[in-house]
Amino acid sequence: MSTTLITGGTVVNATGTATADVLVDGENIVAVLAPGSALLGVDLAQNVDAVVDATGKYVIPGGIDAHTHMELPFGGTNASDTFETGTRAAAWGGTTSIIDFAVQRYGERVEDGLASWHAKAAGNCAVDYGFHQIIGGVDEFSLKAMDSLIDEGITSFKLFMAYPGVFYSDDAQILKAMQKSAETGLVTMMHAENGPAIDVLAQQLYETGKTSPYFHGIARAWQMEEEATHRAIMIADLTGAPLYVVHVSAKQAVEQIAAARDRGRNVFGETCPQYLYLSLEEQLGASSPEWGDFEGAKWVCSTPLRSRPEGHQDAMWQALRTNDLQMVSTDHCPFCMKEQKELGRGDFRAIPNGIGSIEHRMDLMYQGVVTGQISLPRWVELTSTTPARMFGLYGRKGAVQPGADADLVIYDPSGHTSIGYEKTHHMNMDHSAWEGYEIDGHVDWVMSRGSVIVDESGYVGSKGHGQFLKRDLSQYLL
Amino acid sequence: MSTTLITGGTVVNATGTATADVLVDGENIVAVLAPGSALLGVDLAQNVDAVVDATGKYVIPGGIDAHTHMELPFGGTNASDTFETGTRAAAWGGTTSIIDFAVQRYGERVEDGLASWHAKAAGNCAVDYGFHQIIGGVDEFSLKAMDSLIDEGITSFKLFMAYPGVFYSDDAQILKAMQKSAETGLVTMMHAENGPAIDVLAQQLYETGKTSPYFHGIARAWQMEEEATHRAIMIADLTGAPLYVVHVSAKQAVEQIAAARDRGRNVFGETCPQYLYLSLEEQLGASSPEWGDFEGAKWVCSTPLRSRPEGHQDAMWQALRTNDLQMVSTDHCPFCMKEQKELGRGDFRAIPNGIGSIEHRMDLMYQGVVTGQISLPRWVELTSTTPARMFGLYGRKGAVQPGADADLVIYDPSGHTSIGYEKTHHMNMDHSAWEGYEIDGHVDWVMSRGSVIVDESGYVGSKGHGQFLKRDLSQYLL
Amino acid sequence: MSTTLITGGTVVNATGTATADVLVDGENIVAVLAPGSALLGVDLAQNVDAVVDATGKYVIPGGIDAHTHMELPFGGTNASDTFETGTRAAAWGGTTSIIDFAVQRYGERVEDGLASWHAKAAGNCAVDYGFHQIIGGVDEFSLKAMDSLIDEGITSFKLFMAYPGVFYSDDAQILKAMQKSAETGLVTMMHAENGPAIDVLAQQLYETGKTSPYFHGIARAWQMEEEATHRAIMIADLTGAPLYVVHVSAKQAVEQIAAARDRGRNVFGETCPQYLYLSLEEQLGASSPEWGDFEGAKWVCSTPLRSRPEGHQDAMWQALRTNDLQMVSTDHCPFCMKEQKELGRGDFRAIPNGIGSIEHRMDLMYQGVVTGQISLPRWVELTSTTPARMFGLYGRKGAVQPGADADLVIYDPSGHTSIGYEKTHHMNMDHSAWEGYEIDGHVDWVMSRGSVIVDESGYVGSKGHGQFLKRDLSQYLL
Amino acid sequence: MSTTLITGGTVVNATGTATADVLVDGENIVAVLAPGSALLGVDLAQNVDAVVDATGKYVIPGGIDAHTHMELPFGGTNASDTFETGTRAAAWGGTTSIIDFAVQRYGERVEDGLASWHAKAAGNCAVDYGFHQIIGGVDEFSLKAMDSLIDEGITSFKLFMAYPGVFYSDDAQILKAMQKSAETGLVTMMHAENGPAIDVLAQQLYETGKTSPYFHGIARAWQMEEEATHRAIMIADLTGAPLYVVHVSAKQAVEQIAAARDRGRNVFGETCPQYLYLSLEEQLGASSPEWGDFEGAKWVCSTPLRSRPEGHQDAMWQALRTNDLQMVSTDHCPFCMKEQKELGRGDFRAIPNGIGSIEHRMDLMYQGVVTGQISLPRWVELTSTTPARMFGLYGRKGAVQPGADADLVIYDPSGHTSIGYEKTHHMNMDHSAWEGYEIDGHVDWVMSRGSVIVDESGYVGSKGHGQFLKRDLSQYLL
Repeated sequence: MSTTLITGGTVVNATGTATADVLVDGENIVAVLAPGSALLGVDLAQNVDAVVDATGKYVIPGGIDAHTHMELPFGGTNASDTFETGTRAAAWGGTTSIIDFAVQRYGERVEDGLASWHAKAAGNCAVDYGFHQIIGGVDEFSLKAMDSLIDEGITSFKLFMAYPGVFYSDDAQILKAMQKSAETGLVTMMHAENGPAIDVLAQQLYETGKTSPYFHGIARAWQMEEEATHRAIMIADLTGAPLYVVHVSAKQAVEQIAAARDRGRNVFGETCPQYLYLSLEEQLGASSPEWGDFEGAKWVCSTPLRSRPEGHQDAMWQALRTNDLQMVSTDHCPFCMKEQKELGRGDFRAIPNGIGSIEHRMDLMYQGVVTGQISLPRWVELTSTTPARMFGLYGRKGAVQPGADADLVIYDPSGHTSIGYEKTHHMNMDHSAWEGYEIDGHVDWVMSRGSVIVDESGYVGSKGHGQFLKRDLSQYLL
Repeated sequence: MSTTLITGGTVVNATGTATADVLVDGENIVAVLAPGSALLGVDLAQNVDAVVDATGKYVIPGGIDAHTHMELPFGGTNASDTFETGTRAAAWGGTTSIIDFAVQRYGERVEDGLASWHAKAAGNCAVDYGFHQIIGGVDEFSLKAMDSLIDEGITSFKLFMAYPGVFYSDDAQILKAMQKSAETGLVTMMHAENGPAIDVLAQQLYETGKTSPYFHGIARAWQMEEEATHRAIMIADLTGAPLYVVHVSAKQAVEQIAAARDRGRNVFGETCPQYLYLSLEEQLGASSPEWGDFEGAKWVCSTPLRSRPEGHQDAMWQALRTNDLQMVSTDHCPFCMKEQKELGRGDFRAIPNGIGSIEHRMDLMYQGVVTGQISLPRWVELTSTTPARMFGLYGRKGAVQPGADADLVIYDPSGHTSIGYEKTHHMNMDHSAWEGYEIDGHVDWVMSRGSVIVDESGYVGSKGHGQFLKRDLSQYLL
Repeated sequence: MSTTLITGGTVVNATGTATADVLVDGENIVAVLAPGSALLGVDLAQNVDAVVDATGKYVIPGGIDAHTHMELPFGGTNASDTFETGTRAAAWGGTTSIIDFAVQRYGERVEDGLASWHAKAAGNCAVDYGFHQIIGGVDEFSLKAMDSLIDEGITSFKLFMAYPGVFYSDDAQILKAMQKSAETGLVTMMHAENGPAIDVLAQQLYETGKTSPYFHGIARAWQMEEEATHRAIMIADLTGAPLYVVHVSAKQAVEQIAAARDRGRNVFGETCPQYLYLSLEEQLGASSPEWGDFEGAKWVCSTPLRSRPEGHQDAMWQALRTNDLQMVSTDHCPFCMKEQKELGRGDFRAIPNGIGSIEHRMDLMYQGVVTGQISLPRWVELTSTTPARMFGLYGRKGAVQPGADADLVIYDPSGHTSIGYEKTHHMNMDHSAWEGYEIDGHVDWVMSRGSVIVDESGYVGSKGHGQFLKRDLSQYLL
Repeated sequence: MSTTLITGGTVVNATGTATADVLVDGENIVAVLAPGSALLGVDLAQNVDAVVDATGKYVIPGGIDAHTHMELPFGGTNASDTFETGTRAAAWGGTTSIIDFAVQRYGERVEDGLASWHAKAAGNCAVDYGFHQIIGGVDEFSLKAMDSLIDEGITSFKLFMAYPGVFYSDDAQILKAMQKSAETGLVTMMHAENGPAIDVLAQQLYETGKTSPYFHGIARAWQMEEEATHRAIMIADLTGAPLYVVHVSAKQAVEQIAAARDRGRNVFGETCPQYLYLSLEEQLGASSPEWGDFEGAKWVCSTPLRSRPEGHQDAMWQALRTNDLQMVSTDHCPFCMKEQKELGRGDFRAIPNGIGSIEHRMDLMYQGVVTGQISLPRWVELTSTTPARMFGLYGRKGAVQPGADADLVIYDPSGHTSIGYEKTHHMNMDHSAWEGYEIDGHVDWVMSRGSVIVDESGYVGSKGHGQFLKRDLSQYLL
């Protein structure tokens, strides 16, 4: 068990900063100390295995990305990042924990879906990982299986109001699953879009020759996100289930969440970097010599990128400030253009839905600090502390405090990061959704459970270092 | 400079708990450490001057009461606690910082008011103290004087929409002061009640023989709190001033604050223990042999206690959970019945307004943890962390972290506290507003800037230990 | 063609009253005249076939009940009023037009459903009748059939978000039908309850032995009415369809309607007398020797009677005053206890849903004038003028004005009406949902298209007098 | 007493239209008849003194302008229209009743103010006129005087939250006056702008050299209209007074009114044509050779013209559709540029506030029918029926019905009206605020109490024909 002392940095937690040193012993933080290595006369720096100088830099808890989809089967192909490539990219970007989604589909056993996800991840991860459970088929068997999820360390499950025939749950199923949620304390996560209505719109657009990626965004109208968000809230209200709405992108959906919260309900929401920076017009209206107007396929995701003149992006930033949204995850679900996104050439409905951002989340959100959209402590709260509390990892993750896992990032506010495929990112994709984004900051050094996995030479971690995280019940409920 | 090690406790911060030891050196926390006193082979317990065992107990940052009125001249008398007696009572109750209100009235110089408050407090306090500045007369001179308040460490000022002829500012004055607030970053604090309208109602009640304390609450109708709250919000909206509404008691006022926050405005609010527990019917409808129906005078304060059937108390608790209100202060402003409250026998308008609670705030709020109204971390956030951030003390106060002042409380969740005059409290009052309240917890030990001021033998601090706090600008703005 | 002069009455229209005589020639009103029968020197009273003295009484446009279900097949039986008995009861109560619902079910042709309703009604009605079209199976055939409804004088159709397997439309179907609504101008009427969720709750209650009629109301929680109302509003928002929500009973549903209207949307709603006067506790909590606790079955209807302490009844009256609800219909759907309601003894789910009120609507709403809930002109607006405008009958119906059909009621504010089965009502039911209600007013005289059908001797009309009303498009849209 | 038969027109009332003839006998409408002049065999056309052919045209109740200021002393000058010139212009434009504001100022007797207004108007008016009473000084004398206003036929009074030192009432005064309003049924009318705050802003703008008319609009920020509107609503809520907010121009003020109405309160509002068509940018940003950038002074009024990009104009139209605003008045208060508006050259604060529109209201609102903003019946409701009901004139005015005063307008939808000074309007102004507006309709013929005052030859009325209208209490309250 080796010891490390991180000196001279500014420790950032969710409520503020402290100039402090951090002492790591083995896998854990064992002390946070006033700067200067002498403690009761003992020169700590002389007594540790390694000293890391963080002077002028931020020392933050490692990022937690609570929404990723490694190797997800979708639309006849699989998300292009494996747990190996995806978690390695996460490490590059200062994210030291992910929560991925194990999948159960209609007709499958929950236990089998979960086992298969364990099999994909075990021994392959660069950073720690946990699972939410997708319940794609709510029936008596899956409801019964949900009873034992908590023992497995899976304390949240996800339902879909979209994708009929794939993951879709109808309202009767949602009601039953939320009753289970209320009874057990499992958090209900919801993909809130009215899928049946959206599919009609998509079909009509396709039939009238509106087949390019842009129309994916038209079909998935904000009204259908707002509607589903409200519906999920009301079924949660009826059952008492805690509700977490994933990938919120429409300002009217935020208004529904805010209204429920003002009424004292346990209703939460995340947004993703794409809904803060990108837009339907700018990304999906674009064309290029290479991809023709199909280039927009890179940004086909659900919920979709929204119209900028309608003000959704500004509303997302505001909601992050006001805590009407509590977290930022990536919904990392990468697909290559070649052989994957291309499946939807001529029919946007066949484009695999997803954007890859796992490597860039900490940077993109830090840029929000630079531009004044959020404060420095709020950056840490949105990307690490609240994810830990929301999903039962606090204590181990989410804060720089003694006893916690030594998941630490040194972030240099004087550094610079150029994002893009050419630059080169480390996700298994043949392009970048973030080509050309420039960040006024840099991930200098990353430690995962006491092991340095990124330093000035780059990624120095190892496949299999990452361990499965058995999570507790949410620590964020009112 | 002595050293102290607090061992075995559960450190509670705003986002969660950690099992950790806390090392104090001189006036500061120098380390928060994983439990067990061996650090890199050094047995800390053997190397410190004192070891305090907090096993089974909570170690929390000392309470910060951001709203007190020691020795306030009001209604022809003075609040009965001096800085000496009031801060000593604070210490008894686990509060290690107060922010009192220096007073400038119409026609007086701000500098003189502030100097006079420094004179009252200096050398008399048991715990640290800061000042907000009441501006009772907004004019060209006081506006100019406000420019230098930040240099004095006074980073907030208070206006009154009530008390015409005493502290009242009209809307023209409020606008000018809020422009100064927006320009400088000084936080505008607001007593939000429509005083001119309330005074008409009070006069009418008096003239119709409705003179008992109960009618104080009738005259100060919730509509007039809601109205003034909204008005303050809109002038803040127009000017860009950050706004902090004091002693919020009406649920409709909370709704106005919540709506402003949902729109992304820097609007904040505190409530006080009396608005969480007490009511117009229960307290002011009461009678006793001693005081006749004048006993209700004990609970005459402004804003007034509200009607329980109307749901205000539940709404305050809910708002504390949802963060629509961010803090709990006391508005400590004690008056004895004898010779003080008695001034209003036969005319409720002449009853000095105020309740004394400084000693009980931490206990009364902890009881909310016991009853499930708030979580344990939220208790600390409401009573210490957010007050520190809101009023520019974070870093020094408000969190158990290295570098901070060693303001620490050991709170025993297995202890018990009986509140009441007979029991006996330590405020300079001839009664208690909280007679008979029983708390399932106890303040065992209190440290202020490294000095133990309360231990098992009771108060062991000293007059003059408390120092003036020069505050920074708010660290809580969006 | 005979002529009638109604003299001395107070003509009540939607905006106010006028002291005026009304001259009827043949089937039409031909003049409204200043009181006194001399016009340009001609003594009208001497020149007409009949003079009716309305001195001291109100002369109002005949009531229009826009929501009735004669002979509706439901739950294995048929609503107990035929067009003959139901319209005769309507006439007794001052209602001279009804709009009933022709039914198309899944797999049936719309044309056939409509034809069958024409067959039921033709030649049997005491008063004029029109049809809305229920679309129980939205598919390519029914969508196509809707194109020709306007030519048939059917300018509105109804969908159900409840009753899966019977009338239920899913959101994809609703979207398609609303697109048709927006395209054609047909008004979309919506039964807004989340049926799939409610059916789960009902099943769970049944399985736990909660089988009595009371639990019908528990299963159909207000959250599920509010939810469906909002969902319908959002699909209407997306498509541009005008939306009319039937039988609104939950105050939260009204809030959704009000919010949509504040945003300028063509969203409308009706309530029914039962939601204004009756409650879950008072009616369905009751028991009697005769029916055991099954007596509550008399008041099993959907949406259900709501809880009085929750304030729904007061909210409905308020919404009628504020025009957040625009109309009062009956949802007349009577079933006898014997052999009908009894089907659900031991299983509330099998109780045919419905209450019979067609005879009492004008009286029950007039009682709201007596108690000050609504004004006299608002009574006429809610029961006649707005129904006419909403559903394309204005000009012919809904106002006392020249050119209109002579559908007139003389209502005596000094009269009295005792409602109840024993008293005796004229609906084909073996009980009354309104037993014991006493009204401070009386329907004295009713004329339908120039023929007297009720006078002091009672009903004097004839089967087959009533004609089918081809309706125009709504005259009420913004 | 002469008789007139208006034949062949489309009578438009608030709920719809009817093809009908109107028979006038003396000063009153005596019959509304089915078209064709034979009634019971009598050929009416042969028996009347005059027949007016309205074929192809609308026959509407004469317009009621409930907000005018003839000869108002303001800013050191008087509004340029006398009762003679102003009511003549009204007649030209199809308005047959006005309600002007009698003025009482601080220190004056209400009786004297009213008497002086009677003196100005009596014998000078072309059309009927009533008065509201401005109470510029709420004190014991004026409060007492208000008790007798109803006997004088003055059933509404107006307070100002703006214009400190001129008409301003503080909140204590407003409360007292609203108590009187609640007690008596007098409607409280409110100029809702926070005058003290606005005056600070105006002073600051002036002092920084921002002196042109444009800055009048900047100083009178929408926040200060929203604020005052809400404040008036809350004092009305507290007292129970019915509240009518004049000249609403900010969309946020409408939202406050809508919210109060959704809560069932008797809160009403009017807007004016200028807030529907004109904007701060388009009118006050303009310059011309003649007036320099002072030309904007033509449109200096309070509340001010609002910014178009902020959407206020659209919101006003929407509120007229949704009935969140109930009426359109003009706030007719004309000043010439020469010697009047010019007083404010170099200081926008000295520009007399007001725009002249009395002649154009019916036309400008009809244009809203042409463009689809409002329906034809809504045009009549907004300009005549609701004004009559709101201010106690219904029965005599506001509807084409027997017994009513024969105040009638024939409006030609195929006609055309070019508005502007050159075109030439008939108000006593040296310019037009509406220069260049073209209307697709025309006032062809106007009758006031049975006398033709406008025909194809123009104005044919006479000074002194107009009589004082003793008004009843409001007929519009919930």
